[in-house]
Amino acid sequence: MDKKLYEKLVHEGRNFMHHHRGIDRESWKSGQQKELPQPPLVKGRMGGETIDLSKDFIKVIKDHDFLDLLIKRKSNRVYTEEKISLDELSFLLWAIQGVKGIRGNNYATLRTVPSGGARHPFETYLIVKNIEGLKGGLYHYLPLEHQLEFIKIMDGVEEAMDLAACKQSWVKKANVLFIFTCVAYRCEWRYGFNAHRPALIDLGHVGENLYLACASLQLGTCGIASFDDEYLNELIGIDGDEEYACYVQPVGTVKSSNQDKEDAFYSFLKR
Amino acid sequence: MDKKLYEKLVHEGRNFMHHHRGIDRESWKSGQQKELPQPPLVKGRMGGETIDLSKDFIKVIKDHDFLDLLIKRKSNRVYTEEKISLDELSFLLWAIQGVKGIRGNNYATLRTVPSGGARHPFETYLIVKNIEGLKGGLYHYLPLEHQLEFIKIMDGVEEAMDLAACKQSWVKKANVLFIFTCVAYRCEWRYGFNAHRPALIDLGHVGENLYLACASLQLGTCGIASFDDEYLNELIGIDGDEEYACYVQPVGTVKSSNQDKEDAFYSFLKR
Repeated sequence: MDKKLYEKLVHEGRNFMHHHRGIDRESWKSGQQKELPQPPLVKGRMGGETIDLSKDFIKVIKDHDFLDLLIKRKSNRVYTEEKISLDELSFLLWAIQGVKGIRGNNYATLRTVPSGGARHPFETYLIVKNIEGLKGGLYHYLPLEHQLEFIKIMDGVEEAMDLAACKQSWVKKANVLFIFTCVAYRCEWRYGFNAHRPALIDLGHVGENLYLACASLQLGTCGIASFDDEYLNELIGIDGDEEYACYVQPVGTVKSSNQDKEDAFYSFLKR
Repeated sequence: MDKKLYEKLVHEGRNFMHHHRGIDRESWKSGQQKELPQPPLVKGRMGGETIDLSKDFIKVIKDHDFLDLLIKRKSNRVYTEEKISLDELSFLLWAIQGVKGIRGNNYATLRTVPSGGARHPFETYLIVKNIEGLKGGLYHYLPLEHQLEFIKIMDGVEEAMDLAACKQSWVKKANVLFIFTCVAYRCEWRYGFNAHRPALIDLGHVGENLYLACASLQLGTCGIASFDDEYLNELIGIDGDEEYACYVQPVGTVKSSNQDKEDAFYSFLKR
């Protein structure tokens, strides 16, 4: 890549992080301002068999103390491949996308995370490897019903997790890989071409709750910025434009005596 | 704005949310790969008088229970203009950017939020209006020292908050406005032109912790995607390219009996 292209891409990236400068933001109207029909609040069922999830969260949480969770939260890449229960998974799903209420006449969902204009443009899919009571494969979370929906059996769940995470092979040892997609028009309806910057911030709200919820269950996770979106879009069966994969996060069981193996990921610092 | 430009911007925004498609990602090297010097972990002191902050957080937290905080967290826009103590502010700052350790020989800070490659590219500034023991004005957080640094007195603190938030006038009633900037090369050194998408997700990690920490102190906050970055860059004295404002979040005192006033922000739904 030549220097000019590199600098152009850096410049575009920086610009994207603040505002679309140089565009008269008064000169356009969003779908909402034009009174176009509002898109659905969620994607809804894709036709798979559904699994009810518990909301009895208190019994699965091991560490309830917020300050303690802030102190203990960290990234984990070494997983011990013990079981995670369905009730634990249920808490993780609720903590990151759970619906607490509806505003107006189906105007917005109120969730466990904030989202610009309460648009909540994300869908959550899981590649399940080792969750008690679930067969391995691809699932979809139904936030309104607090249910999981089984999408399909997958050959080679570990291989899929590996490919999804651009061959960061430690991911294969996770029990489950969370995949977040964005249904773009759900936020563009309100924010038009300004929707995508806030949506990425919203994705961080989701990721942070997954980190803290994992800490509260004494499970490990690590946000992954490098993933194969084209592979994931095809796996899920989405077009990569109206809906596209935009973040993945594995969750696995951990033990504190593996800290030396965690540290080995930073062995390059010893040189 | 003509339809073609609008569609181009939407397309670019969607693309930015997943990957820089069509670019051979093997054909470039980051500053880190080229073994260029690592930029400083923090901006460091700007020369102002410093104020020590307490780390005795337990005594200021009113609600310690994580599940309870997930249930209660919401956006608040109606503030009651009572005092917030310096110790409460100290907890908010630590919860969003506090340093828990250093990795290697000053390779990375480990903080209360995750950040891609532990680059933590953000600086935190405050427009202080009503914090016990602090004069009104602009401050800068020093995460390594857990200190505040006084930058300058400001005429018209309320007006500044109003301008910062693009004249969303409810922001003026907040006690303090958190301003986050990005020091771009701090993350570009490792991730080059791919740094900015993960940085926005990291910004959401920060924002979510501020939401939850506010809930634990029974304070109110609301993330704001629409802010005047040029005004803020000038106020802080940064160039808007190497360092630029990228998010603001007001914090104020609240009371539950104001729920009707909060609901009035959604009166358009009754039409």
